[in-house]
Amino acid sequence: MIERVAILGTGLLGTSVGLALRAAGFGGSILGWNRSAEGAHEALSMHAIDAIAPDALEAARESQVVVLCVPIYSTLDHMEQLAAVLGPEQMVTDVGSTKAQITEAAGRLFNSPDRAAFLPGHPMAGKERGGAALGDANLFRAAVWLFTDDPSWQRSARGVELVQGWRDWVAAMGSKTIDLDAGRHDELLAWVSHLPQFTATALSSLLEDQVGNAPELKQVGGRALREMTRLGASPFSMWRDIAHTNTAAIESALQALEQRIAHIRENLRTPELREEFERANQFRRGS
Amino acid sequence: MIERVAILGTGLLGTSVGLALRAAGFGGSILGWNRSAEGAHEALSMHAIDAIAPDALEAARESQVVVLCVPIYSTLDHMEQLAAVLGPEQMVTDVGSTKAQITEAAGRLFNSPDRAAFLPGHPMAGKERGGAALGDANLFRAAVWLFTDDPSWQRSARGVELVQGWRDWVAAMGSKTIDLDAGRHDELLAWVSHLPQFTATALSSLLEDQVGNAPELKQVGGRALREMTRLGASPFSMWRDIAHTNTAAIESALQALEQRIAHIRENLRTPELREEFERANQFRRGS
Repeated sequence: MIERVAILGTGLLGTSVGLALRAAGFGGSILGWNRSAEGAHEALSMHAIDAIAPDALEAARESQVVVLCVPIYSTLDHMEQLAAVLGPEQMVTDVGSTKAQITEAAGRLFNSPDRAAFLPGHPMAGKERGGAALGDANLFRAAVWLFTDDPSWQRSARGVELVQGWRDWVAAMGSKTIDLDAGRHDELLAWVSHLPQFTATALSSLLEDQVGNAPELKQVGGRALREMTRLGASPFSMWRDIAHTNTAAIESALQALEQRIAHIRENLRTPELREEFERANQFRRGS
Repeated sequence: MIERVAILGTGLLGTSVGLALRAAGFGGSILGWNRSAEGAHEALSMHAIDAIAPDALEAARESQVVVLCVPIYSTLDHMEQLAAVLGPEQMVTDVGSTKAQITEAAGRLFNSPDRAAFLPGHPMAGKERGGAALGDANLFRAAVWLFTDDPSWQRSARGVELVQGWRDWVAAMGSKTIDLDAGRHDELLAWVSHLPQFTATALSSLLEDQVGNAPELKQVGGRALREMTRLGASPFSMWRDIAHTNTAAIESALQALEQRIAHIRENLRTPELREEFERANQFRRGS
């Protein structure tokens, strides 16, 4: 039913979507557009896309499904432009890490009977570094792919079909899909994704100040230290948009962690420490 | 030169020391003592020890090298007892995770010409769970084994030989040895080992309160969340003695992290956030 897909942004995620679609048996055409020509050529050479589109809007116009694989603010910009040129026989989806602003724009600009459909999506998959060259047909296998669809949206009949068709392809790529309210998505992600990232950044940055000039001592920390600071390698460019579009929820989560660490610090010699360890043990047992 | 070793405490570390000595070609006898008979029998069945000693002091008396592989406070108790029964033809070493109190006791109770030698040691190796059954001949391979030896100690000539002999076996087990002042050891470990552990405990405990009742949502966090909370599974019993014997340094490290997290929280939308990410990136590049 879906025969023409355009992937706007052929970085790690966009390239992986193309490869995963092919691996899942998608037989239609996949057009790719990228801000820099280099990334587009890399995706083409990997057969993640069939052809490079010189213009994003042109590529979208010719497609049934447009997959936005660009940073959050860039996604919001593309949404404004795409809403003006697409119609009710088309749909757009995205892979942005925060969903409140994108889902609000989806309701405002898309998802009425005379407009294109928009399905806000968020695959929980990635790598430490980005770029088309790291694209991976198995990136979404056994991952969770979140949607913040809104049941009150009035899509065209064709829009409803395309949305269901895209959900089927996501399942075929090996992901487990979960539907969440957009506000709940951003709150949840603040806890289980953004808080761990900013914690690793704070810990790594602090340790750089404390022991950064003694590389031979870093190995003393061993596997535990490596694991707790691995996310410290995450690039700012990936996290700036997240920090800007989910600020309040991240602030709350960070403040709660500050308080929890202070509680442990004040109880290193009291029975409260045992309770914190047992609560932490419980979290791991339940996962 | 070393022909009779006693391992007091045949848990994960003690059993691994026995197995690693054998794998490195140690041909002498290895006596094992353990508080519970079960752990001793397990170590015996794995050939980590040649025989079970019914009494710790008796086993130590008959040996040239005594390896204390018990928790920190238990190590301090054994040191008091061993100092009274051992002589200048013998040496004792340990594997405790904090070294200030043990090294102080080593200077006070051992390391004079008429007494046994004591070499305070700390192999940076372990597993998420303890017990003889997880003992591993390769546990110390490519690990760092720290010593907090004090050059001012006046050991017997035989004590000096035994200490060098034990250092040679540690190298033969595959470890890289580093010598540190005991105070510097505990301060450094507070940063690169204790801080990561208590951070993971705080994060896991907080997340148990926030999302512990929604196990299907935990998987949303993916690999990053699993890594940042893996140490949350660490048992309190292993960490209580560390919290009690390195309290001030751990308090300082935790307070510094609270301040760093607060700094990030207050700068989610300012250029300071980029600087924190770049400092964190630098830590990872240097490791």
